[in-house]
Amino acid sequence: MTLAARIHAAKDLRIEAIALREPEADEVVVALGAGGICGSDLSYYGKGRVGDFSLREPMVLGHEVAGTVTRVGRDVTSVRPGDRVAVDPSRPCLSCDYCRAGRSNLCRNMRFFGSAAIFPHVQGGFSETFLARADQCVPIPDSMPMRVAACGEPLAVALHGIRRAGELLGRHVLIAGAGPIGLLCLMAAKLAGARRIVCTDLADAPLAIAREIGAAETVNVASEPERLAAYEADKGTFDVALEATGAPAALASLFRVVRPGGRVVQLGMMPPGDVPVNLLMAREIDFVGAFRFHEEYRTAVALLAAGRIDVAPILSAELPMSRADEAFALAADRARAIKVHLAF
Amino acid sequence: MTLAARIHAAKDLRIEAIALREPEADEVVVALGAGGICGSDLSYYGKGRVGDFSLREPMVLGHEVAGTVTRVGRDVTSVRPGDRVAVDPSRPCLSCDYCRAGRSNLCRNMRFFGSAAIFPHVQGGFSETFLARADQCVPIPDSMPMRVAACGEPLAVALHGIRRAGELLGRHVLIAGAGPIGLLCLMAAKLAGARRIVCTDLADAPLAIAREIGAAETVNVASEPERLAAYEADKGTFDVALEATGAPAALASLFRVVRPGGRVVQLGMMPPGDVPVNLLMAREIDFVGAFRFHEEYRTAVALLAAGRIDVAPILSAELPMSRADEAFALAADRARAIKVHLAF
Amino acid sequence: MTLAARIHAAKDLRIEAIALREPEADEVVVALGAGGICGSDLSYYGKGRVGDFSLREPMVLGHEVAGTVTRVGRDVTSVRPGDRVAVDPSRPCLSCDYCRAGRSNLCRNMRFFGSAAIFPHVQGGFSETFLARADQCVPIPDSMPMRVAACGEPLAVALHGIRRAGELLGRHVLIAGAGPIGLLCLMAAKLAGARRIVCTDLADAPLAIAREIGAAETVNVASEPERLAAYEADKGTFDVALEATGAPAALASLFRVVRPGGRVVQLGMMPPGDVPVNLLMAREIDFVGAFRFHEEYRTAVALLAAGRIDVAPILSAELPMSRADEAFALAADRARAIKVHLAF
Amino acid sequence: MTLAARIHAAKDLRIEAIALREPEADEVVVALGAGGICGSDLSYYGKGRVGDFSLREPMVLGHEVAGTVTRVGRDVTSVRPGDRVAVDPSRPCLSCDYCRAGRSNLCRNMRFFGSAAIFPHVQGGFSETFLARADQCVPIPDSMPMRVAACGEPLAVALHGIRRAGELLGRHVLIAGAGPIGLLCLMAAKLAGARRIVCTDLADAPLAIAREIGAAETVNVASEPERLAAYEADKGTFDVALEATGAPAALASLFRVVRPGGRVVQLGMMPPGDVPVNLLMAREIDFVGAFRFHEEYRTAVALLAAGRIDVAPILSAELPMSRADEAFALAADRARAIKVHLAF
Repeated sequence: MTLAARIHAAKDLRIEAIALREPEADEVVVALGAGGICGSDLSYYGKGRVGDFSLREPMVLGHEVAGTVTRVGRDVTSVRPGDRVAVDPSRPCLSCDYCRAGRSNLCRNMRFFGSAAIFPHVQGGFSETFLARADQCVPIPDSMPMRVAACGEPLAVALHGIRRAGELLGRHVLIAGAGPIGLLCLMAAKLAGARRIVCTDLADAPLAIAREIGAAETVNVASEPERLAAYEADKGTFDVALEATGAPAALASLFRVVRPGGRVVQLGMMPPGDVPVNLLMAREIDFVGAFRFHEEYRTAVALLAAGRIDVAPILSAELPMSRADEAFALAADRARAIKVHLAF
Repeated sequence: MTLAARIHAAKDLRIEAIALREPEADEVVVALGAGGICGSDLSYYGKGRVGDFSLREPMVLGHEVAGTVTRVGRDVTSVRPGDRVAVDPSRPCLSCDYCRAGRSNLCRNMRFFGSAAIFPHVQGGFSETFLARADQCVPIPDSMPMRVAACGEPLAVALHGIRRAGELLGRHVLIAGAGPIGLLCLMAAKLAGARRIVCTDLADAPLAIAREIGAAETVNVASEPERLAAYEADKGTFDVALEATGAPAALASLFRVVRPGGRVVQLGMMPPGDVPVNLLMAREIDFVGAFRFHEEYRTAVALLAAGRIDVAPILSAELPMSRADEAFALAADRARAIKVHLAF
Repeated sequence: MTLAARIHAAKDLRIEAIALREPEADEVVVALGAGGICGSDLSYYGKGRVGDFSLREPMVLGHEVAGTVTRVGRDVTSVRPGDRVAVDPSRPCLSCDYCRAGRSNLCRNMRFFGSAAIFPHVQGGFSETFLARADQCVPIPDSMPMRVAACGEPLAVALHGIRRAGELLGRHVLIAGAGPIGLLCLMAAKLAGARRIVCTDLADAPLAIAREIGAAETVNVASEPERLAAYEADKGTFDVALEATGAPAALASLFRVVRPGGRVVQLGMMPPGDVPVNLLMAREIDFVGAFRFHEEYRTAVALLAAGRIDVAPILSAELPMSRADEAFALAADRARAIKVHLAF
Repeated sequence: MTLAARIHAAKDLRIEAIALREPEADEVVVALGAGGICGSDLSYYGKGRVGDFSLREPMVLGHEVAGTVTRVGRDVTSVRPGDRVAVDPSRPCLSCDYCRAGRSNLCRNMRFFGSAAIFPHVQGGFSETFLARADQCVPIPDSMPMRVAACGEPLAVALHGIRRAGELLGRHVLIAGAGPIGLLCLMAAKLAGARRIVCTDLADAPLAIAREIGAAETVNVASEPERLAAYEADKGTFDVALEATGAPAALASLFRVVRPGGRVVQLGMMPPGDVPVNLLMAREIDFVGAFRFHEEYRTAVALLAAGRIDVAPILSAELPMSRADEAFALAADRARAIKVHLAF
C-alpha cells in the first residue's frame, strides 16, 4: 500500500492508501520527489473532468513528476535503485502507426499518467510510490532539485509547441497566455533565439513574471486591448503566435496580428472557436495543433539539468501532500501562483 | 480603343469600347484568345463585390486568359508579335519582402487582373486587346487550344493548393467541392500520385464529372452526409483534405475525417467559421491557407501543353463576348456547367 | 527442417535442409511464394560479402519475399494461416531512439533478412518456410502474383528514395542507373508526377526498358557521354538526380547537371568518392542518402495491389530454387535480365 | 574621384583615385565607415584569384562594409543623406527564377561587391565612397560602431549556414574551422539554442577565442586528432556539423562523427573532395551547401544592433586604408587575428 492523492469527484480529493501492483520486468517503482499541479489536474479537481473526459472511477492525479527509483523489474538496466529521475508521464505503445512514424504523442494506445481519457483510467504520480516503465525515467544530477526536474513535463510541452512553430532564430513571436505553459514557451522561444517576444494575458501578475523572464513587451488584453491591435498594422507583425490560453475569445485576434505566411500554434485545449478563415486563406497562415510532446521530454530535462532554462521565476510554492486542497486552491489563483508543487 | 466586358455594378456588365494606353518598355499587347469565367467574376457580376472588395469604378473582368501577342514594348525579348501565350494574371512587384522571400502570391503591391482589391482597380483581360508585362506571358504551342491555355490560371491555383498539401504520393485525399478548382485539384492530386481521392459536393452533376476524372468515390453531402461521416472512424481517414467549397458549413466536418497529423488546405474564400480547435490541437492537424499561386503558373501551362493534365471534362462551353450575360448565367448554373469561356 | 538456399562462401550456394525454430508469440511461419534476387544477394554470391560485411557463417539469402502464412504464434491476430502476404524484411526494434523518431530504417538493432551486417547473421527468406514477426506481413489480394508482391521490397526502396527527393510534381528528374532500383525509381517518379525523366546507364538493354516504362530520354553514358553533358547548360537542368548505379565514376557528373538548389539522392551503395564540393556549396545542392525504407513498404504493396505501379516490364524470369545458380547467373547478366525470382 | 583599395594582381594592391559614376535613380552614395577583410579578399590579394575566378582587370576589394549615406538618387526614400547604414554587398536582379523563388543568393545575374566572378568585375567597397542600390542599405543606430555593422555580412553568412542546418534548439553541433565564419557560426548556433557546441581547428589561438565565446569543447585536429575521433562512437554523435575550413582533408572526418539522419553543412569554398558516400547513404546524412545569404543580412544587422550577438571577441584590429598591406598581412595571420577592418 502507498499513500496517494486520488480524485473521486469534483472537489473530492482524498489522500488515501492504495495498492501498488508488482513492477513488470521492464518497470520500476519510483518514490515521488515532487509533483507539479497542472491545468488538467485543476480541471479534474474543480469539475471532475477535462474537456470531454469525465471521471468514471477514482483516479490518482499528477503527471509532472520526479522522484527516486526504489525498485526495478528484472530486465531493467537503464536505471538502478537510488537513481534520481524525472519521469515522462507518456507511455506510448511504440508499435502503432503513429509511434512508428515518430509521432508517439499521437499514439493510438497512449497511457498518460493521471488521465481519464481511457477506462480504466491511467493512475497518476501524486503517490508516495508509483510505477513507470523504465524508459519513462530520465536520470538527473544530484544537484537538480526535484521541483525543477518535475518541470521537465510542462517544459517538454513548450518545446514541442516551439518545434511546431518552426525555426525561431531572429523571429518576432507572440505568446498568448502567461500561465505555466505560456511562460515556459517564452523561455523556450528566448532560448531558440527569437528576436522579440510579446506576451499577453488577462491578468497583470503573470505578465510581470513574463517581463522578468524576458518578454520585450506584455499586454493585458483585458485592460488595454488596443496595444495588441496596434500589431495588426501592415497585415500583421508577428512571424509566429503561440496560443496558450485555451480561451476561444483570444484566438481570432491572433490571425490579425500574425503576418502573411506566418504561423499560429495551438497549445491550449479549447472548444470549437471562430477562426477568420478568410485571413487564414488570403494570408496563407498555418494554424497548427501542438499536443503534448515526444522526444522533447529528454531535451527538456537536459536543458534544465544544464541550466540552459531556469524555471525559478515560475516556481511559486511547494506544499506537503497533506495540504493538497490548499495547494490546488493556490495553483488556481493566478494572482498568487504560476506553478505549485506537492511532495510527501 | 478596344472592346471590353466591363462591370459597372451588380448585373450591369457592358461590352464597350475602352482606351488602351501604350505599352511600357517591358509590356506587351495581347489579343484575347479565350477567357474563362471564374467564381470571383461571377461574384462581381452577381453582387458587385468579392468578399470585402466592392466595385468603386467600372472594371474589366477576367483573369483566366490566353491570347496572341500583337505588339511588344521596346525592351521585350521573351515574346514576339504573333506568339500565342497563356497570360499569368499576377503582376507582383518583385521587390517587396514577400516577393524576395519567394512568396510573390502574397506580394504587398500585387496587381492582379480584374480585381477591386486596390483602387484604382486593376483592369482584367475580357478585352479584345489588353496589356501585360512580358514576364506574365508564357508561350504555348500552336496545337494548344486557347481555352485550354486559359485554364492555366485555375490549374495553377490547384497546383498551389496541392503544394501546400505536401507530398501526396500514396496518400488518401479528400476534396470538398467539385467546382472548377475542386476538379482541377482532383486532376492535380491524381497526377501527384494520390492513392485514393474522394470528392464531395452538394450537387450531383459535378460529382459525376469527378468520377469521370478519377475520383474513387463521390459523396453528395446534402443527400447522403452519413457517407462522409463514415470516414470519421479511427480518428479520421484522410491524410489531406482540400477545402474548395467556400462554404463555412463544410469546414468543420473536414477536421473530423482527417487523420491525426493530417492537413486541411483552405482554397475557398469564406467568412470566419467554426473550427473544432480541440480536434486541431489534440490531433495536431495543420490547417493552412492556399492563396492564388506563384511559379505554379508556368508548371500548369507546361503540364497542359504536354497533355499531362487533360481539362476537357471541365470545358463546358465557349460563347462570344456579345453573349456575356448568357455565359455568366450558364457559368453560375452548377447543374449545367463547370467552366465557361468567352471569346471575341 | 525446411529447404533453403544458403550461401557458405563466394560461389558456394547450397540448397539444403535447415532447422526452423518454433515461432514466438508474435511471429508467424511463411511458406515462400516467390523471392527476388537483389544486388546484395548477387554480391554475397559473387564475392562472399556486401561492402564491409563478410560472411562469417552460412546464411540463407533473400529479402524480397512473399508467401503464404502457414502457422501463427499465439498472440498473432493480424494474419491467419492461409493468408497470402508480402513480407517486409525489416525487423526494427521499435524502441531505440531512431525507431522512436520515425526513422526505423536507421534502427540501432535492425534485423534485416539475409544480412551479414550483424553476427550471428540474420537468415533470409529463400527458404521453403521462414519465420517473420507478424507485423512484417502485409496481406495481399488473391489476384496478386507472388512475384509482384515480392517486388514490394525494391519498390519500397525506390519510394523511399523518391521521398528523400522531395516533391516531384512537375519536376525534371535524372535517374542514374537503370537496374531494378533505377527502373522502379522511374516508375515511382512518374507516378509522383515528374514532368520529364531522363535515365542513364552503361548498357543499352535496360535503357530500352526504361523507355518502355516512360523515360522521356535515355542516355548511354559509356557510348554517348556528351548527351548527358548537354544538360550542364545554364548551371544544370535537373531538379533532382537519383543515384542508383553504385558506381563512383558516375557520381561527380550528377552535380554538374543538377540545377542550383537541386537535390542528389544517393541510393546506390558505393565506396567513398570524389564529390565536387565547390559546386555543392556554390549551387546549394542537397546531397542526401536514402537507405532502405520504412512505412513505404506498405505503400509499395498497396500501390502494386491497386495496379498503380506495374512491374511487369522488369520481371525477367522465375526459376525453381533447384536452379538457383542459374538464376543468380541470369540476374547478374544485365543484357538479359532486370529482376529474377526464385520459387520452390 | 574617390580613393579606393584596388587590386591589380597578386600582392599588388594600390590605394588610388578612381572615378565614381553618378548614382542611378534607385542608388545611393555611401562613405565607407569600416570594411572587414574577408578570406576572398585575402585570396585575391595573395593569389590574384578566388577559386576559378581570376582577376582580369583592376578591382576594388571589399564586401563587408558599413558607412554613411552622402547622396541619394531621385527615387530613393528608404534612406537619406547622413544615415548610417550597413551595406549588403549582394545586388540580385530580383527577376530571375531564383530571385522569384526566394533564393536570390543563387541569382543568375548577381552583382556581388568585389567579385571577379563576372566581367567586367563588380567593384567592391574598400573605397572612400561607393555606390549601392538603396535596398542594399540597412540603417543602423548611432550607437553601433561601424566595425560592428560591417560584421553584418559575415554574420549573415553564418546565419544562412545555420538556417541550412535546420532547427538547432537542443542539438549537438560541431563547427569545423574557427576562422571568422566558424566563430560567427558558433555565436549563431549558441543563439539558436544548441545544447553543446564543439569547435575544431588546426591552430590554438582561434580555438581559445572559441572557448571564450562559448564552445563547450575545442579540438586541435592537428595535435590531438583522437579527441575528434572519440565522437565516432555509436555511429556518430553530432546532430549537425558545419564545415567552415575549406580544407578538403577535414571533410571526410565530419561524416564519421555526425549521427545517422544528421546534417553536414558546407560553408567553406573548397576543391572537389573525397566524401564517404557509403556513410552518407547508409546513415542517411544530408550534405548541403550554404552559399552566401539572403534575407539573413537584415536579421544579422538587427541582431547586432540589439546586442543579441556580440562580435567583440573577433574584432582584432582596425587600420587606416593607407596601411592596407599591413592589414592584409595581419588578417592572414591566424595566430594574431580573426577579423581585421580598414577605414579611411
